[in-house]
Amino acid sequence: MSQADEFFSDVRRQIDAALDRLVPVVETEPTRLYEAIRWSLFGNGKRFRPSLVMASGRELGAPDNKLLGTAAAVEMIHTYSLIHDDLPAMDDDDLRRGRATAHKKFDEATAILAGDALQAMAFETIAADDSLDVSVRLELVAELAAAASRMVAGQQMDLEAEGRSVELSAIERIHRGKTGALILFSVRAGGSIAGGSTAEMESLSSFGEKIGLLFQITDDLLDVTETTQNLGKTAGKDAASGKATYPGTIGIDRSRQLISEVYSEAIDELRALKKESGSLALLAELLLKRSESATSSQS
Amino acid sequence: MSQADEFFSDVRRQIDAALDRLVPVVETEPTRLYEAIRWSLFGNGKRFRPSLVMASGRELGAPDNKLLGTAAAVEMIHTYSLIHDDLPAMDDDDLRRGRATAHKKFDEATAILAGDALQAMAFETIAADDSLDVSVRLELVAELAAAASRMVAGQQMDLEAEGRSVELSAIERIHRGKTGALILFSVRAGGSIAGGSTAEMESLSSFGEKIGLLFQITDDLLDVTETTQNLGKTAGKDAASGKATYPGTIGIDRSRQLISEVYSEAIDELRALKKESGSLALLAELLLKRSESATSSQS
Repeated sequence: MSQADEFFSDVRRQIDAALDRLVPVVETEPTRLYEAIRWSLFGNGKRFRPSLVMASGRELGAPDNKLLGTAAAVEMIHTYSLIHDDLPAMDDDDLRRGRATAHKKFDEATAILAGDALQAMAFETIAADDSLDVSVRLELVAELAAAASRMVAGQQMDLEAEGRSVELSAIERIHRGKTGALILFSVRAGGSIAGGSTAEMESLSSFGEKIGLLFQITDDLLDVTETTQNLGKTAGKDAASGKATYPGTIGIDRSRQLISEVYSEAIDELRALKKESGSLALLAELLLKRSESATSSQS
Repeated sequence: MSQADEFFSDVRRQIDAALDRLVPVVETEPTRLYEAIRWSLFGNGKRFRPSLVMASGRELGAPDNKLLGTAAAVEMIHTYSLIHDDLPAMDDDDLRRGRATAHKKFDEATAILAGDALQAMAFETIAADDSLDVSVRLELVAELAAAASRMVAGQQMDLEAEGRSVELSAIERIHRGKTGALILFSVRAGGSIAGGSTAEMESLSSFGEKIGLLFQITDDLLDVTETTQNLGKTAGKDAASGKATYPGTIGIDRSRQLISEVYSEAIDELRALKKESGSLALLAELLLKRSESATSSQS
């Protein structure tokens, strides 16, 4: 097992256990709601955002038990956003994390409510996490709530841009909200929990912005080049629905080039932190490798 | 102007100003999202839940400036729940607070996202409210998040009970979640901000449960007896969609009797607090009067 695989399988196991502990069991009334929540949470998710919380926290010296609640909360927010984005009124998708979307498996009302409940649970999880000081918890709640608002604004912009030709600057604005805000929060959260210095938090923030961008360009590229089975969600969906994407706007080659540039910038930020060979670097490298496999399968 | 009218118009003015200050202006990108949020927030709402926060806080000696943020946050959660409940996949309603529902005025995707953003803003508002001690803010976030989860579970139960004959105990369980949890939070929040004693918080909690029940039975009764114009939302909707209601289960006369009993119990709790003639009593009385006008217009 490679170092990256070991890191991921350890984080995944711990995050899944934390989520299982934090979310009501399916026998809780109303059972359909909690079934839908667990169905959506425990699909074949990559747990990328929780991994960022764990990695940045560990790099700055926080123990896992202080990171797990916030990492689980981020995954709750992410999962709620997937459930709502997949609804017929939004991206109208049938497949997510390798299985039926919540509104397909259950129904639209249950899917909307499952998302709503997950958002509330995320804030409750952090507020009630007594492994953390009160002031840290409050800072995390405020930052996570601001990130969740920015994420929603990004999704609105993304929907409004559908079928329209948009400039690179507009794509960047959409994704800084839609995916960037929560990824940035995840990286910063680990640092906050570890009690990072102002300088460390600044470097983490810059790294968080870069890795958010790296994630999005890679995700856009994979949508073009991969199969539905490999992705666990419908492939080719972006182009079919006229989404604003990096390859759609600047082409596949320039997207690949941008990924390589952004990756270097991200590693530079880690160098400033003297963490260029730890688990944050592994996560950045993983995204780079995903994008390389994507572009080669295309050629 | 009666004492109750004065109280309400003062609270309403202050809450509306607080909401206006806290919610991004409509010129914020994406403008459609913030237009939908403001459209939904600034309809002809009664501001009942914020009034409870202000009343219970004032009764226990908190200044208005410490209460307004939390009162506004409660209204954000309430408004998000109305937007989502009105969606076609749920109660499918066209009219709310005297005007078109958000998905009618805008579109379904925007309505879902406006609700999602309002939920996040509510938690951000409390977390960032520097008029309150850090530990009070954290307690409020945790309690509001738990109440929001219970509200969602109640809405799910309500939808599942549609068209089925249910017992009184099931109706109570639905409404303790769907409307009761947020009303209870509102009453307790004022007490927490004022630094209420354990005994005071216990009395406030009992009062909060009673007034939640009073509110719901009255609301169910008005749906049967009032016109759409008077309600500002579609009248007769509960019966048409086979909702589980008090008058539907125990009849109008028994509902009226229950209102009178619950009102007395609520006033008893205020007596324990020595607050039987303040603004919390005014609010309970207001619900009683609404129900009396409802039953008389029926006869």
